[in-house]
Amino acid sequence: MTESPQPTSHCAIRQYANGQFSALEDTVIAEARVELVVNDNELRMAMLCLPRQLPELAVGFLRGEGALRSRDELDSVDIDPSGPAILVRGRFDPDALDAIRRRWTWGTGCGGGGTSAQLNPEAYQPVALGLTVGAEAVIGLARSFQGTMDLWKNTGGVHACSLASASELIVVAEDVGRHNALDKVVGRAVLDELDTSDKIMLTTGRLSAEMVSKAVAARVPIVVGRGAVTALAIGLARKFGLTLVGFARAGRFNVYTGFQRISG
Amino acid sequence: MTESPQPTSHCAIRQYANGQFSALEDTVIAEARVELVVNDNELRMAMLCLPRQLPELAVGFLRGEGALRSRDELDSVDIDPSGPAILVRGRFDPDALDAIRRRWTWGTGCGGGGTSAQLNPEAYQPVALGLTVGAEAVIGLARSFQGTMDLWKNTGGVHACSLASASELIVVAEDVGRHNALDKVVGRAVLDELDTSDKIMLTTGRLSAEMVSKAVAARVPIVVGRGAVTALAIGLARKFGLTLVGFARAGRFNVYTGFQRISG
Repeated sequence: MTESPQPTSHCAIRQYANGQFSALEDTVIAEARVELVVNDNELRMAMLCLPRQLPELAVGFLRGEGALRSRDELDSVDIDPSGPAILVRGRFDPDALDAIRRRWTWGTGCGGGGTSAQLNPEAYQPVALGLTVGAEAVIGLARSFQGTMDLWKNTGGVHACSLASASELIVVAEDVGRHNALDKVVGRAVLDELDTSDKIMLTTGRLSAEMVSKAVAARVPIVVGRGAVTALAIGLARKFGLTLVGFARAGRFNVYTGFQRISG
Repeated sequence: MTESPQPTSHCAIRQYANGQFSALEDTVIAEARVELVVNDNELRMAMLCLPRQLPELAVGFLRGEGALRSRDELDSVDIDPSGPAILVRGRFDPDALDAIRRRWTWGTGCGGGGTSAQLNPEAYQPVALGLTVGAEAVIGLARSFQGTMDLWKNTGGVHACSLASASELIVVAEDVGRHNALDKVVGRAVLDELDTSDKIMLTTGRLSAEMVSKAVAARVPIVVGRGAVTALAIGLARKFGLTLVGFARAGRFNVYTGFQRISG
């Protein structure tokens, strides 16, 4: 059971604060797609995670799903760094493994963007060029967005997402999960036949690879989050030409990719 | 497309602040298990979500997964409040529907606790009685937990989870997703053959039904979160006799269920 790659990496960002941009280096969290392999081929699945404590992740997951009933039934856990993959061997409950394979419930935080990116390549095209938004417009949208979060204010228990033009919020949705809130906003855009290629998406959640993947599928060129951005999200945003903005709060924000779309 | 049930509900809690308990009423976010039914039987799956804007959720999800290619291919979206269920009709990409059915990637935030609860009933037993912890011990653990979050401090991008005795943190894990962090902690407990029935679990994330479901499967009697608690999580905690503590930060916390385990 070896330890895995660095949990953080550095990247060059543009930070907007006190009315001006500055170039600096930021530390971002690593996020990796790791394969879980149970007894060679009894189960193979991928997960998006922080690539540390991988044996623990695999064992805890299998325990939680009922596949691993006790420590005795676990023979070995090895890490293949080339995958990366977690290779687990043991005697697992076949019904529970089958249930994992056939899982038909997705949770509040699950989006499966990684899957979609592979299964529906035609849905994943570089986003449209052309849209430019002023930095103060981003600040204004983030402030309006904050103002609409009524459920959040009452309970602290929800995430919100919005689709906006450069001047106003057009659609807003809240949910227990940030991916659900995003799906609701995209769903409303589809129902209203809104053009998303000149819109800005705002979210209260962290910008993980799944969130960026969903934004790419929805063809939104600028995504603005209140929270942190993962390294994998940055890689995806670069690949599809998306502008990724993190830590948008209290009159400031960081631009991680697609700097050209945010003007000073 | 009718609107759905109340997004919040009220519950009686015990709040600990300034060294003493008081009884008060709190507003908590609703969370519901909603079924998505595509063309009667082409796809049936369940999701955990805030039961509002359900047509948007279904349409945005199907769009994001590549199943719905354009507005024209959508015939109708209806809500069956008795389920509750979202009934969607249209011409969807059969390959994309199949991919959703066979989804084999789970994301950073996905746990599937709802599924497990149904599929592995033997894993879901009421948690052990007996453990009692003083309120100041909870405050102390929350403070130690906060202190261990080194990655969080650097990047703001991770969730953490810990398994603790009444006096100290025993296992700590961090991840991009709160469910993954929980799985890592449980995995370490399994590998070390730790008895979890007298332990306290701490998490930085919100306590949704999935998190409580995973804690029940791990047989942990007390779960302490820094964030909010959903109504469905409270229901699950009551059912399995778990003590649920939310908003544990800055020397205070709210107890939602299992009051008897936290002494003054």
